[in-house]
Amino acid sequence: MSDTRPPLANIITLGARNVPALRDFYRRIGWPLIFESGDFAAFELRGIVLALFPVADLAADGRTEAEPSRHPGIRSTIGVILDSREEVDRLTRLWRASGGRVTKEPVDAEYFEGCSSYVADPEDNFWEFSWNSGTNSVIDAARRAAGLDR
Amino acid sequence: MSDTRPPLANIITLGARNVPALRDFYRRIGWPLIFESGDFAAFELRGIVLALFPVADLAADGRTEAEPSRHPGIRSTIGVILDSREEVDRLTRLWRASGGRVTKEPVDAEYFEGCSSYVADPEDNFWEFSWNSGTNSVIDAARRAAGLDR
Repeated sequence: MSDTRPPLANIITLGARNVPALRDFYRRIGWPLIFESGDFAAFELRGIVLALFPVADLAADGRTEAEPSRHPGIRSTIGVILDSREEVDRLTRLWRASGGRVTKEPVDAEYFEGCSSYVADPEDNFWEFSWNSGTNSVIDAARRAAGLDR
Repeated sequence: MSDTRPPLANIITLGARNVPALRDFYRRIGWPLIFESGDFAAFELRGIVLALFPVADLAADGRTEAEPSRHPGIRSTIGVILDSREEVDRLTRLWRASGGRVTKEPVDAEYFEGCSSYVADPEDNFWEFSWNSGTNSVIDAARRAAGLDR
């Protein structure tokens, strides 16, 4: 019998051009570095572990090619749920002060009740910071997935 | 005073060319679809919520550009921690049978004790499936981040 629960799927590895520089960026954001070995670094957030690994090594380990070119466009985001509008403002300001890029300043959200900002790290990995004035199915699921509210 | 705990950062949104097709792919994998509205779909795993949203809409919401071109190369992975070598084999086989691509068949892992495979969904979003024979700092952190083992 196979396990039919959804699997633990929460180590997000970003293929990096410059792991030490990206590691230092996330340390400036204040996130806890919990493991480092050679050119691998990992931060523990709630929900996920954020890992950094050279993109060439990631491609070699995956028996595939690294992305052929860099491009600043968006393809995915890691969504961060914050506790207040002020916290979205604060983290967005900290991101910019730490050397990150802000593509959308905190404004009222289009798809839910609350506000959000969009930011990119120095290697163009995108994050969305949001605060919800109420709750919804996706927020509830995110909290359950992280073991909160139970 | 701002909250110094790391934030809840676990909604992974993939910008999709074809949300219904990608949604159907992940349903074939057997992952639970917990919310759907228009061209947005969300699956609840352990650790993360996996959301699918049209990449053009994601770019518009983030006040940025979508990736200018498609490229099958790897840039990041979502790491899945499974309970046995057999489960890595099973999920890798299911992935291929469901229309996904396998770039690395399950083999002994290079960076930890255990085995792993690498796969990509029909829109070239990469996942790593792994089983660890023991444990390590990253696995421990991933379990803590998902609210397990406490």
